[in-house]
Amino acid sequence: MANYKITIQYDGTRYKGWQVLSNSDMTIQGKLQNILTRFTGAETDVIGSGRTDAGVHARGQVANFHIQDKFSKEEILDVLNKYLPDDISVTEISQIPDRFHSRYNATGKTYSYYIDISPKADVFKQRFLYHYGKTLNVDAMKHAASQLIGTHDFTSFCGNSHFKKSAVRTITDINISVENSIICISYTGDGFLQNMVRIMTGTLIEVGNGSRDAASIEELINKKDRASAGYTAPPQGLFLEKVYYDGI
Amino acid sequence: MANYKITIQYDGTRYKGWQVLSNSDMTIQGKLQNILTRFTGAETDVIGSGRTDAGVHARGQVANFHIQDKFSKEEILDVLNKYLPDDISVTEISQIPDRFHSRYNATGKTYSYYIDISPKADVFKQRFLYHYGKTLNVDAMKHAASQLIGTHDFTSFCGNSHFKKSAVRTITDINISVENSIICISYTGDGFLQNMVRIMTGTLIEVGNGSRDAASIEELINKKDRASAGYTAPPQGLFLEKVYYDGI
Repeated sequence: MANYKITIQYDGTRYKGWQVLSNSDMTIQGKLQNILTRFTGAETDVIGSGRTDAGVHARGQVANFHIQDKFSKEEILDVLNKYLPDDISVTEISQIPDRFHSRYNATGKTYSYYIDISPKADVFKQRFLYHYGKTLNVDAMKHAASQLIGTHDFTSFCGNSHFKKSAVRTITDINISVENSIICISYTGDGFLQNMVRIMTGTLIEVGNGSRDAASIEELINKKDRASAGYTAPPQGLFLEKVYYDGI
Repeated sequence: MANYKITIQYDGTRYKGWQVLSNSDMTIQGKLQNILTRFTGAETDVIGSGRTDAGVHARGQVANFHIQDKFSKEEILDVLNKYLPDDISVTEISQIPDRFHSRYNATGKTYSYYIDISPKADVFKQRFLYHYGKTLNVDAMKHAASQLIGTHDFTSFCGNSHFKKSAVRTITDINISVENSIICISYTGDGFLQNMVRIMTGTLIEVGNGSRDAASIEELINKKDRASAGYTAPPQGLFLEKVYYDGI
């Protein structure tokens, strides 16, 4: 058997997210597994670096799978891209050591969230951004974002109320840039809780529109209370940009 | 009654084209008519500058309609954009003289066709271009395109074999530009026959890939034979960019 690492791009609009729920559901993992299972003749598990929610996109999702070592990586890449629908694409493939696990070995991730503040939504871009449609105070958002950076218990920003494990995560960088009417917030950290990026984004938007104090984020973190944080920004603005691994 | 002219953008992917076929079909004209009919309480016809095919997009389709003059144009614009789906948007509205007819008064149109020559399709752009995936000789395409400019009988480029009216049209400009891996061919003329832009594009692609002589276009026009021209390039690469009117 050989272990392959792949990088995947997808337009998540049509999908119920990364992870297989049932075989009849449209999921990215399901599409990949079905092709590899048919190609190799053996049930194949595709291990993702993490789940993405329904409607969320990826420019650099990473996954790995173990299959017989009789195929070249070029052959596998060709088969995947031949049978994948137009909105999923494998951009890279490499054979990696057997022990590599795309989730356990991931050391960090970058997500980007795109907000359109122009009054009128752009019909050609609406799949890939959140049309907010009103002005936001970007300086206030930057000030709020700076308080999220660091190692914190992010319970206030966790969408899963039954989550029992540690909610401590480290955010190393949040970059907010503006180009024309699009605000892009990029979050880099060692890992993110369920809906965490979308809840941080909803909270930053509430700071940007003046309904939440820019200096209140530290206090919000300390509350460890999801209900005190902002709304969950919708999925279509979110992209998993990159997954980081040490030495690979 | 008052006559209103609107400019419409749409992502045509989900639609069977501009023109209403039956009420159950997804069409752009149908979406607009349904909203205006419900809003005004009177059956409203929306007259387009011309049809676009299933899957074809528009950045500047123009239409007009006559409704009671008791509404402001801002009110009509708001209602339309409120009830239109995310992939259709009205960008402009103006009240125009009663005699204005968006099809009869159109003096010209610009269409653009986008071809992606990179080996790998981009999942985030695939809705709005034709992924050809192989290199094309753009200089040869420009030479071929120059022979299409002028006033000709374009029967060779007409997708409707039952077309009985004059196929004489004037193309005033064809501009071919390249940006990264995207070739954009913009056609401006006084009018275009059914599928004409897509057949010209398929023919120019055959010149670009070397399977058709760049100098043969004049002869092809003279043949007045659809079967001698190139294939019909797929709809998703095509945008109706602009419709021209004299003095409006």
